[in-house]
Amino acid sequence: MDVITVDALVDGVHFDRRRSPPEAIGHRALAVNLSDLAAMGAEPRSALLSMLLPGDLPLSDFDGIVQGFCALAAHHRVQLLGGNLTRTPGPLALDVTATGSVKRRDVLTRAGAAAGDEVYVTGTVGAAAAGLETVASRQSSVVSQAVDRYLRPEPRVRMGVVLARNRAATACVDLSDGLADGAHRIAEASGVGMVIDGTTLPVDAAASAWWQASGGDALMRSLVSDDYELLFTARPRLRGRLAAARGQGGTPVTRIGYCTREPAVVLRTARGDIPMPAGYAHFGAAAPERLDRSGAVR
Amino acid sequence: MDVITVDALVDGVHFDRRRSPPEAIGHRALAVNLSDLAAMGAEPRSALLSMLLPGDLPLSDFDGIVQGFCALAAHHRVQLLGGNLTRTPGPLALDVTATGSVKRRDVLTRAGAAAGDEVYVTGTVGAAAAGLETVASRQSSVVSQAVDRYLRPEPRVRMGVVLARNRAATACVDLSDGLADGAHRIAEASGVGMVIDGTTLPVDAAASAWWQASGGDALMRSLVSDDYELLFTARPRLRGRLAAARGQGGTPVTRIGYCTREPAVVLRTARGDIPMPAGYAHFGAAAPERLDRSGAVR
Repeated sequence: MDVITVDALVDGVHFDRRRSPPEAIGHRALAVNLSDLAAMGAEPRSALLSMLLPGDLPLSDFDGIVQGFCALAAHHRVQLLGGNLTRTPGPLALDVTATGSVKRRDVLTRAGAAAGDEVYVTGTVGAAAAGLETVASRQSSVVSQAVDRYLRPEPRVRMGVVLARNRAATACVDLSDGLADGAHRIAEASGVGMVIDGTTLPVDAAASAWWQASGGDALMRSLVSDDYELLFTARPRLRGRLAAARGQGGTPVTRIGYCTREPAVVLRTARGDIPMPAGYAHFGAAAPERLDRSGAVR
Repeated sequence: MDVITVDALVDGVHFDRRRSPPEAIGHRALAVNLSDLAAMGAEPRSALLSMLLPGDLPLSDFDGIVQGFCALAAHHRVQLLGGNLTRTPGPLALDVTATGSVKRRDVLTRAGAAAGDEVYVTGTVGAAAAGLETVASRQSSVVSQAVDRYLRPEPRVRMGVVLARNRAATACVDLSDGLADGAHRIAEASGVGMVIDGTTLPVDAAASAWWQASGGDALMRSLVSDDYELLFTARPRLRGRLAAARGQGGTPVTRIGYCTREPAVVLRTARGDIPMPAGYAHFGAAAPERLDRSGAVR
């Protein structure tokens, strides 16, 4: 089946035009959507790029944005079908629609987790938040690796597809709104609770170093870091499938918790259990759920 | 085959939030895309609504926009699959992606016109421009019909589909950037010239009355009026097909010119022939052609 998703990046909300290279802005705009497709287990196919262009945007910046977009598209064999350009009296914005395909029976949703399932995260978390902080503080030379992960996130396209094909995951989201938000979304959609062991969270090394130096709380910051990783649940008795997916997915995977019958989402810290923070929502109560994310075409 | 299109409306560029009812904004955002699909001969299927929301947008306005969108979607049996909401420090913007389907051999493009083909337009032109002027001048009671056509354009969905199915048209565009722009686009893509007889242009009656009263040039204003009509070309010897399409399409159609071997696009006026005005482009030279409109999925 075909799946389709749309996501927008706005200057001053999701990135800072004065501090991001144009290529990184274009890269990021597509990466957001590829990450969304990965969370559905879909192979990306095509994209549309719709841009709101302020009058003062230099043509070279426009070119850089399109180049960054197209480079990531080429890497994942995503066809740029077209798009739209319009001027705006407001900030630069990129709205990207992406399509993908996945067998109907393989589609990953947020709703399949059951009590007893284990919770996993791909890669590491925290680099995006640390990268954002260092870019904002202009100390970018300190942790250029975290900055680069923030500016040019690599969506887990392959891992999403193999998790779906191997039927290794029962539910999946990406972390584009942070791990705390992702945990809440799976828990709510699946009607389960969750215990996330914060002490096992795979915090990015450069991010850790940054927070050690700057006095930031690595755990709390990592929970709201918009890393382009996947958070998923898996049945303990199907670990064989997960092992196969790990082998093919090319991404490290860490077990960080489990699902519970009790509906609460709990964060286990060195100082004891606390409620999982709410995460951040770009828009909260005003957003009807069905408008908040992607859907499936036929 | 599936086709897909995306178009954005920005407050202050494509509409004025202070002067448009919220329902009309939502209606218009979908209508732009349905008109695009109609120009390809495609039956609309589904849509995604991506909104950039300024902090001062009242929740009731948000609801009204979504209602206007959904009412038009229901009328044309378009399924709202999902979307995205984000805040913006800039103006309200709606970016809509719509999908449709059309048999591959039936797809209408801009590139099929040949010298000798006749040029037609559906419905009437000018109402949108007059409506915009009257809304802007706050004299909306004078020509409420034109205002309504401006605020709630009815895309020619059925006519586009029957033109395609009957193979009645050789090239087609919609007038969302005006008739002058549409004529130039077909001429350029098809490698032909065009003579448009301005004296035969079906100018909307209420718009005519408005310009008579306000001193506006009805012909020149109508050429840059973003009416949601279709401009298409047809072979004279296939008039039987066109007659069939007219019967099924439920929309009046007027012949307004013909295609020429000479590449110029000419406007015939009561005072003689002049070059067709350039029309307006939301973005001009900076826009790579492939980013300027929709494309086709597979």
